[in-house]
Amino acid sequence: MRLHVPIKLRWSDLDAYGHVNNAEMLRLLEEARIEAFWVTDDAEAAVGGSTAVLDGRPGADTLTLIARQEIEYLAPIPYLRPPLDVQLWLGRLGGASLEVCYEVWSPEGTEPRTLFTRAATTIVLVDAGTQRPRRINETERAAWTPYLDEPVQFTKRG
Amino acid sequence: MRLHVPIKLRWSDLDAYGHVNNAEMLRLLEEARIEAFWVTDDAEAAVGGSTAVLDGRPGADTLTLIARQEIEYLAPIPYLRPPLDVQLWLGRLGGASLEVCYEVWSPEGTEPRTLFTRAATTIVLVDAGTQRPRRINETERAAWTPYLDEPVQFTKRG
Amino acid sequence: MRLHVPIKLRWSDLDAYGHVNNAEMLRLLEEARIEAFWVTDDAEAAVGGSTAVLDGRPGADTLTLIARQEIEYLAPIPYLRPPLDVQLWLGRLGGASLEVCYEVWSPEGTEPRTLFTRAATTIVLVDAGTQRPRRINETERAAWTPYLDEPVQFTKRG
Amino acid sequence: MRLHVPIKLRWSDLDAYGHVNNAEMLRLLEEARIEAFWVTDDAEAAVGGSTAVLDGRPGADTLTLIARQEIEYLAPIPYLRPPLDVQLWLGRLGGASLEVCYEVWSPEGTEPRTLFTRAATTIVLVDAGTQRPRRINETERAAWTPYLDEPVQFTKRG
Repeated sequence: MRLHVPIKLRWSDLDAYGHVNNAEMLRLLEEARIEAFWVTDDAEAAVGGSTAVLDGRPGADTLTLIARQEIEYLAPIPYLRPPLDVQLWLGRLGGASLEVCYEVWSPEGTEPRTLFTRAATTIVLVDAGTQRPRRINETERAAWTPYLDEPVQFTKRG
Repeated sequence: MRLHVPIKLRWSDLDAYGHVNNAEMLRLLEEARIEAFWVTDDAEAAVGGSTAVLDGRPGADTLTLIARQEIEYLAPIPYLRPPLDVQLWLGRLGGASLEVCYEVWSPEGTEPRTLFTRAATTIVLVDAGTQRPRRINETERAAWTPYLDEPVQFTKRG
Repeated sequence: MRLHVPIKLRWSDLDAYGHVNNAEMLRLLEEARIEAFWVTDDAEAAVGGSTAVLDGRPGADTLTLIARQEIEYLAPIPYLRPPLDVQLWLGRLGGASLEVCYEVWSPEGTEPRTLFTRAATTIVLVDAGTQRPRRINETERAAWTPYLDEPVQFTKRG
Repeated sequence: MRLHVPIKLRWSDLDAYGHVNNAEMLRLLEEARIEAFWVTDDAEAAVGGSTAVLDGRPGADTLTLIARQEIEYLAPIPYLRPPLDVQLWLGRLGGASLEVCYEVWSPEGTEPRTLFTRAATTIVLVDAGTQRPRRINETERAAWTPYLDEPVQFTKRG
């Protein structure tokens, strides 16, 4: 099962070529991930509903460290007013870490649908007090397991 | 008359204090201004409707240069999921330049409403070919005149 | 007396016009200000030497809030490899707040020298514990007073 | 053979955890790559000297598209005043594309030396006129071949 998170582009995401900048794309993925899995100040509005169980508020007990990212840019993304359709799922749910997989598609409701980007992020949950990895708890595991699926397949590895 | 442009925060707009960064605020204002006044690839979705008459597409005849900005930060902005309510109007409509005024409010539909930021941007229209200022044309002037009002009053000038 | 802080541009500071982006300029000013006035992890390398007396390290007792910024963009800035010459001084040194003034010049050692930008930032010192403004202390006042001068004069106010 | 490019951090590269943000890291790699391989407005100052043969100036005949990036974050990077030591080499030099490999180290001249990040970027050279890939030319190949070496080895692939 996949989550669909609509992510609105900003003009400032574009670089001198008029396309979404390669580094900025990681910010868009970050935003989609937070919308989907984090509790923030206004949990009720979370896209993921029951998937938003990770407390990301200031002073929270858990930090999330990024261990690894891989990204394939399949087609340049121009400025678009309707939001991108960022699809997320989990490629792996380990003891203290998880892999978030993404496909970034052109806006829902437009034709033809274009797959712009394919990516994966490995995240480690860290206890804010001890600064050491902590295990994914039962609430998190229950909320996230429905979104566990095959890891994204990259086609451009050397 | 004012335009109301909803602007969605991103987690990466926050700085180490957990508030929207002071420089990032200018990007939010830029985004609101483009939504309101620019024609982009998908003009139909423009917030401003008839106000979106300035061609901002790649290769357009007109460049827009920023000559001046002034901004007062009245209250720190935390991460919020519902979009900020950015209100825009024109404080001046000159020969080749205009002043866009802004008030940034907490999301519509939430209480109490908080005024976070007050700002103004002076923009000069420049002919892309000659690289010299060009006059605001009749289409632009007709579209924008309804939004002409008193310039924003700054209260913190030294 | 002015501090001269060399600030290196990055390619990503440029926007689709090939010039330093208007919002990014505030980040460059922020960087110059921190180099000049903040103690960070490696205080010895501070440009300002004795001016770097404000503790900006994580967990410091003082937060610095931006209350106001004003900026005039006098000439577009292309990508340049030698660092910009950001000149800083204080236009006002109040009880709990100060005004940092800036002129951004083309790199030292190049001719002709161009004044690209003129700006000012009002900063309030806030006690991290009480979250209320706190007075500039004697160490700070002694370190900063030599850099007190006339506030920058803006020429483009409406 | 490796190029060593010193890259200065900015305060705004840090996120709410006080570490260099994961997306911002891609901007730092981009900056190192441009310093090393691009001709910009001021070619004489290029770090790479003879390696800087790719014309990146506005209106240049060649666009560089990013096809793929992979990055491992081995240790969090705090704010540091001396520049990071970004080491670059080429893991592959193909017909129309190349792979840039990176190791990001703590500043030269400090002890102990820490390896913060390992990364690779696949770049395709595109003819600006036809918008199609174009072959790496003889000047480029001659300039870059000395920096051809084993591709970076990633240790955290799933």
